[in-house]
Amino acid sequence: MGVPVPVEVICTGTELLTGKLNTNAAFIGERLAQLGLSLTAVTVVGDDQQRIESAVQQAMRRCAVIILSGGLGPTFDDLTREAVAAVLGRKLSQNESVRHAIAQRFASRGVAMPANNDRQAAVIDGAAVLPNANGTAPGQYLDVRLPDCQRMLKIFLLPGPPRELQPMFESAVVPLLRPLAAGITRQFVLHCAGLSESLIDEKIRPVIEAERKLEAEAITFGILAHQMVVDIKARVTGDDELLVDETVTVLKHEFHELLGDAIFGEGHDALESVVGKLLAKHGKKLAVAESCTGGLLSQRITAIPGSSLYFTQGAVTYANEAKTRVLGVSAATLESFGAVSEQTAAEMAAGMRRAAAVDYALSITGIAGPSGGRPDKPVGLVYIGLSGPAGTTVTRYHVPGSRADIRERAATQALDLLRRELLRYEVSSRPVKS
Amino acid sequence: MGVPVPVEVICTGTELLTGKLNTNAAFIGERLAQLGLSLTAVTVVGDDQQRIESAVQQAMRRCAVIILSGGLGPTFDDLTREAVAAVLGRKLSQNESVRHAIAQRFASRGVAMPANNDRQAAVIDGAAVLPNANGTAPGQYLDVRLPDCQRMLKIFLLPGPPRELQPMFESAVVPLLRPLAAGITRQFVLHCAGLSESLIDEKIRPVIEAERKLEAEAITFGILAHQMVVDIKARVTGDDELLVDETVTVLKHEFHELLGDAIFGEGHDALESVVGKLLAKHGKKLAVAESCTGGLLSQRITAIPGSSLYFTQGAVTYANEAKTRVLGVSAATLESFGAVSEQTAAEMAAGMRRAAAVDYALSITGIAGPSGGRPDKPVGLVYIGLSGPAGTTVTRYHVPGSRADIRERAATQALDLLRRELLRYEVSSRPVKS
Repeated sequence: MGVPVPVEVICTGTELLTGKLNTNAAFIGERLAQLGLSLTAVTVVGDDQQRIESAVQQAMRRCAVIILSGGLGPTFDDLTREAVAAVLGRKLSQNESVRHAIAQRFASRGVAMPANNDRQAAVIDGAAVLPNANGTAPGQYLDVRLPDCQRMLKIFLLPGPPRELQPMFESAVVPLLRPLAAGITRQFVLHCAGLSESLIDEKIRPVIEAERKLEAEAITFGILAHQMVVDIKARVTGDDELLVDETVTVLKHEFHELLGDAIFGEGHDALESVVGKLLAKHGKKLAVAESCTGGLLSQRITAIPGSSLYFTQGAVTYANEAKTRVLGVSAATLESFGAVSEQTAAEMAAGMRRAAAVDYALSITGIAGPSGGRPDKPVGLVYIGLSGPAGTTVTRYHVPGSRADIRERAATQALDLLRRELLRYEVSSRPVKS
Repeated sequence: MGVPVPVEVICTGTELLTGKLNTNAAFIGERLAQLGLSLTAVTVVGDDQQRIESAVQQAMRRCAVIILSGGLGPTFDDLTREAVAAVLGRKLSQNESVRHAIAQRFASRGVAMPANNDRQAAVIDGAAVLPNANGTAPGQYLDVRLPDCQRMLKIFLLPGPPRELQPMFESAVVPLLRPLAAGITRQFVLHCAGLSESLIDEKIRPVIEAERKLEAEAITFGILAHQMVVDIKARVTGDDELLVDETVTVLKHEFHELLGDAIFGEGHDALESVVGKLLAKHGKKLAVAESCTGGLLSQRITAIPGSSLYFTQGAVTYANEAKTRVLGVSAATLESFGAVSEQTAAEMAAGMRRAAAVDYALSITGIAGPSGGRPDKPVGLVYIGLSGPAGTTVTRYHVPGSRADIRERAATQALDLLRRELLRYEVSSRPVKS
């Protein structure tokens, strides 16, 4: 397997030096890794032609591909075109078809093209123009033979706004970079819930430490926990596409064997979309009753398009009076056990299931903090109720973190409890083979 | 006023080259700007000693302060200490008191210190140790006289995790950098709602274009819109603290004169906290009824600690049946006008106010998309109802963006409607001077 070609990214923009997050560098880094290419450095400089030139000169000595983002706008502080042209000793020329496309864009909005947009039609001699479907600034692409060492260098000039850069990267940059990748790369992410990061780490050790026999193949693993969801990431690179794909299949199989139901999805799956699919598949309806999460659970469920198919109602019963009036939690229960108790969680879930006439109801009551904790009921104590055809159960958690963390994690646990219940339903309702 | 001293940041960590957002660079950039210092470049390199060394060498030639983040951990790929020592031609020595502090940290958790944590006790000769209250890796600080040019250079080595870096930056780095700032810097952010970014831009032009007479003073302005909240940022730098403070006061006054009630807060104020404070101040209670926002409005209101003081209940009535059962929206209204209509929004708000027996109730019904739009009721159409002592009103919006954008923006508009109503209440209930 060859060595990956080194790529450098240069981001221009004073806003990136005064507090703005550099999402372009993160996006390009992730995509390059997926392609099996190696991003070796990112340099961020302000809107200053001399600094951009010097960053390009230094990168040229070290890498085979330079991707620049930003500085292609129409105003005086958009200097990337000029800087790259100066470093290469080339001229900028007005490109008539680019100019025409920009003028068209303005015309379609019924606006005359401002004079300074002319600058965006300036193309470096020898550069290919990369069309911009989402903005006025086209990208530019150069394939340069370095005079001193006969090495080839690819330079891409991309616009700064992510909604312009990302589609251009996919359509124009990826096809030109893919052939430079050292072999075939595949990666996947499995999402787990209901087990801690360290427990998952321990369980999957045998897979991670196994010495794969396939030659010339590299596998990298990562584990990342975020608000009680644990992601297992794996990337497989090799020369033989069939072997790489087979390794991916084997790895996934091994993870599933070791973790079972803890894995709830892959890639872009979210817990709420997986739960939604299970509910829709079985034609079941859901309602939820929340106290400490204050609507977050409903919000996450309804963030999924089409959730009205299975979600009918949520109740945020913050005041005790509302718990009684809306959900029928008895005043005696609230009096004897308190709003944060197993008994209240059970009555909230059962009451919501009855009131909304649904198949399943979830309830959450807890202490999100920062104040309101007591020795017997500390901040982070959360009871989650689940009421369904099989009855009502309550699970107690002690969730660490800030108010926002506790709320987010409690909602995640609630969704995971329902997911596991739906999986049990799926197994129990499966027709027995005769 | 002097020229600001150039500062460079070098972030190490392969994860920053494969998709992780560089929050440390954004944090440091923002803080330096607030201090009146100039971040001139950020370089990101992987966990590779040679590349870290080369980044430090290059930065040394250009700047007066280098801040490194990351690579201070205990494992083999934590190489920042070694790289900086090599560039400066200095030795690393085991620091006994650092070693002791690390061992203590482990002991307090009942764990023996692993052997590789020894590496974290290695301090560059001549460096000051910066204590780490939130992790094992101490920071290091060097004041170096460059041999070739007699220039002084400050080098800071900070840990990578933001929860360790940020407090260390505040306590140990800021005091050493503040004297390098070119003058006194103050900045402020005003948050506006209910007016578009371009309208605000137009209204505040006179302030931005005014030629301030104060000598040797620099003012920079910025406008940033995010989900219908528009932030106006201003930074004032000068040599005379009194003049700088006075300018800040004048600018704020002018913005308030021009924008009035559109400004809802400053700094860390959020719309939901401002609304919460107004409700608490006047002893008023709030309940909300949501359809398309699915709990997001409740969630934002209850994200504020202490919101149980004024928020009693939320209803997420996703199904029409729930709108009727929970809020008393009449079947005839739903039939004739549809769930997304002025009439339904009005009945939702009035019904919630009655059911929850509160002073104010908000309602939101709309089409969040991506599907479900029709020519007469397109995606983004949102009705917001507000029911209070003065009656019930409904406002119609056409909100652009994705499903998530539409939900977020509708919730923002609802909060702003209530805020303006509470301000009117405040004015009308003010005692008349005799």
